[in-house]
Amino acid sequence: MTTTPDPRHLQVDLGERSYTILIGPGQLGTRTPLADWLPGRQALVVTNDTIAPLYLQPVLDALSGLQVEAITLPDGEAHKTVASCERVWTRLLELRFDRSCTVIALGGGVIGDLAGFAAAAYQRGVAFVQIPTTLLAQVDSSVGGKTGVNHPLGKNMIGAFHQPRGVIADTDVLASLPAREMSAGVAEVIKYGLIRDADFFAWLEDNIDALLAREPEALAYAIERSCANKADVVAADEREQGVRATLNLGHTFGHAIETATGYSTWLHGEAVGAGMAMAAHLAEAMDWLSATDRARVEALIQRAGLPLAPPRSMTSEQFLQLMAVDKKAQGGHIRLVLQQGIGHAVVTDAVPDDRLRATLNHYTDGN
Amino acid sequence: MTTTPDPRHLQVDLGERSYTILIGPGQLGTRTPLADWLPGRQALVVTNDTIAPLYLQPVLDALSGLQVEAITLPDGEAHKTVASCERVWTRLLELRFDRSCTVIALGGGVIGDLAGFAAAAYQRGVAFVQIPTTLLAQVDSSVGGKTGVNHPLGKNMIGAFHQPRGVIADTDVLASLPAREMSAGVAEVIKYGLIRDADFFAWLEDNIDALLAREPEALAYAIERSCANKADVVAADEREQGVRATLNLGHTFGHAIETATGYSTWLHGEAVGAGMAMAAHLAEAMDWLSATDRARVEALIQRAGLPLAPPRSMTSEQFLQLMAVDKKAQGGHIRLVLQQGIGHAVVTDAVPDDRLRATLNHYTDGN
Repeated sequence: MTTTPDPRHLQVDLGERSYTILIGPGQLGTRTPLADWLPGRQALVVTNDTIAPLYLQPVLDALSGLQVEAITLPDGEAHKTVASCERVWTRLLELRFDRSCTVIALGGGVIGDLAGFAAAAYQRGVAFVQIPTTLLAQVDSSVGGKTGVNHPLGKNMIGAFHQPRGVIADTDVLASLPAREMSAGVAEVIKYGLIRDADFFAWLEDNIDALLAREPEALAYAIERSCANKADVVAADEREQGVRATLNLGHTFGHAIETATGYSTWLHGEAVGAGMAMAAHLAEAMDWLSATDRARVEALIQRAGLPLAPPRSMTSEQFLQLMAVDKKAQGGHIRLVLQQGIGHAVVTDAVPDDRLRATLNHYTDGN
Repeated sequence: MTTTPDPRHLQVDLGERSYTILIGPGQLGTRTPLADWLPGRQALVVTNDTIAPLYLQPVLDALSGLQVEAITLPDGEAHKTVASCERVWTRLLELRFDRSCTVIALGGGVIGDLAGFAAAAYQRGVAFVQIPTTLLAQVDSSVGGKTGVNHPLGKNMIGAFHQPRGVIADTDVLASLPAREMSAGVAEVIKYGLIRDADFFAWLEDNIDALLAREPEALAYAIERSCANKADVVAADEREQGVRATLNLGHTFGHAIETATGYSTWLHGEAVGAGMAMAAHLAEAMDWLSATDRARVEALIQRAGLPLAPPRSMTSEQFLQLMAVDKKAQGGHIRLVLQQGIGHAVVTDAVPDDRLRATLNHYTDGN
């Protein structure tokens, strides 16, 4: 007989919208407090056709006795659309679910973002619970309240800020995660070390192999520390007016890579990995990061199984054009997040054009 | 040479989201402070094909020098859809409008609700300004932050709470409003008197004819006092957890009428007028309203040009069924807003079934 260790409890402090993230193995069973988080007796689980066969039943079991239904969408970023939201809204209305109902997201980031926005807009906002099933979603979507869907003209362009009632990050579900997706999640974990937690960065240098091997203790620690770092940033700046933008380290370069490659070949975390390497190059050029520290950054990104450079097919001009339309752009200037040493990052528009261009040329053969 | 009198300024107090409603004639010209309300230099005016020929140009003129564009949707409730929102989002993205842009609603309630939700969800929320062009929109949509669109399975089922940066209620635009729409707007004006402002109700008894004749001073006073009453209620209960529900006086009966008639023959305000008469009947039956006061209520509704009863084709059973699915229903009980005298209303689930049924039978020949 095995016993399930008590989960880690991380409190995300947002006043009356505060909530708990439960982190650890064995959290999807009947011991989950899921039912306690529901304001009413109606719940709709939103999931996809990859996750449903693996983890839907335990969630339904945890809510037995309530009016719980599920909607299974096709897997993939291509379905993160307003049309998918409309399917969720139609199902909620067919079920005659009222304002006291709860939408439960069971899946990765796509499902979390989509179901969160569906919950935010249904009857102007109903309760929302997240059960993220990828490392990326556990460390990234669990905190911050960002929800949304893609528009043909831009990613995440339609959405809302909507906080969950609670999050269950079960480390057991990561056992079935493909290695590439595991690495992609680790990219965001490394990011928290880089932007504000030098001790965590050092811990990652020591424990990256245990993490990739899915050792439960290492996973739970990394998830908790990532979420705690993000929660600190978000609590200080819920609506992304200032410091929260540091969470976009590597993302402006990364989004350019994702857009140039049509969001089909690179995973988001892979693009962020290469983007963080590019940002480290630029930070060194600005004399904000030593050569030694840049080498540490590159070594950890590489050991995590992530790329250190964008695809060779991209050009500097392409980067400049794609970065300028990124939604972080304000008033025409390219605004970047760059490190100042390991464990500190700033949002800056002080990078001279020629220095940015020099970094882009370094990664694109100068064309 | 004519001079434009200074407008009335009503401050809606919502902490850091406080804003001003300007009320009076001649507010759409170049003297408007519209441009000062914009956080950036990009604005998209959302309007419809009835209003655009009349009032779009003065709005564009008031913003000359900024990057201002317009999108004109077909007129009518049938276009208050997610699909119309997607047209607005597509236009915003084609224009490459960033998070500092503003969406300006120029039209009645449909345009205000739709453009407000489009603004709420674009890049997770951009600035929003309202220029309501009907009396109903000026007294109702100007305050409260409710935005949204219809779903084939229910009205206003998809939406958000999103406060405007400012509202311009130009009384001149009401000159072109059809008499039926004028009366429909007065229904909501009467409602404010009934639920919380006995003095205003008495003022309306004295000034209803001036109001219907569009006398500017009477209009400006009625709009300001209606908005002030609504603002008080909303400030106390922004997310509609309690007292705000009193704003739904007459609306539960009214929605049943609108649904039964397919939202095609009755205007919303007409259904609310009949709904308030029905609520007064029930309040008298509960001994909460005297026969004399009920007669005053009916007289004012009638003088406003509004119906005092639902269509004869409706049955009590139909009412009961349609009222039970109204979104104000909670946990299976029919929750109603009823007057206790003139100038006071309560949210109650204390009405015995047989008493409700007796009122319904009174209005439906007992079938």
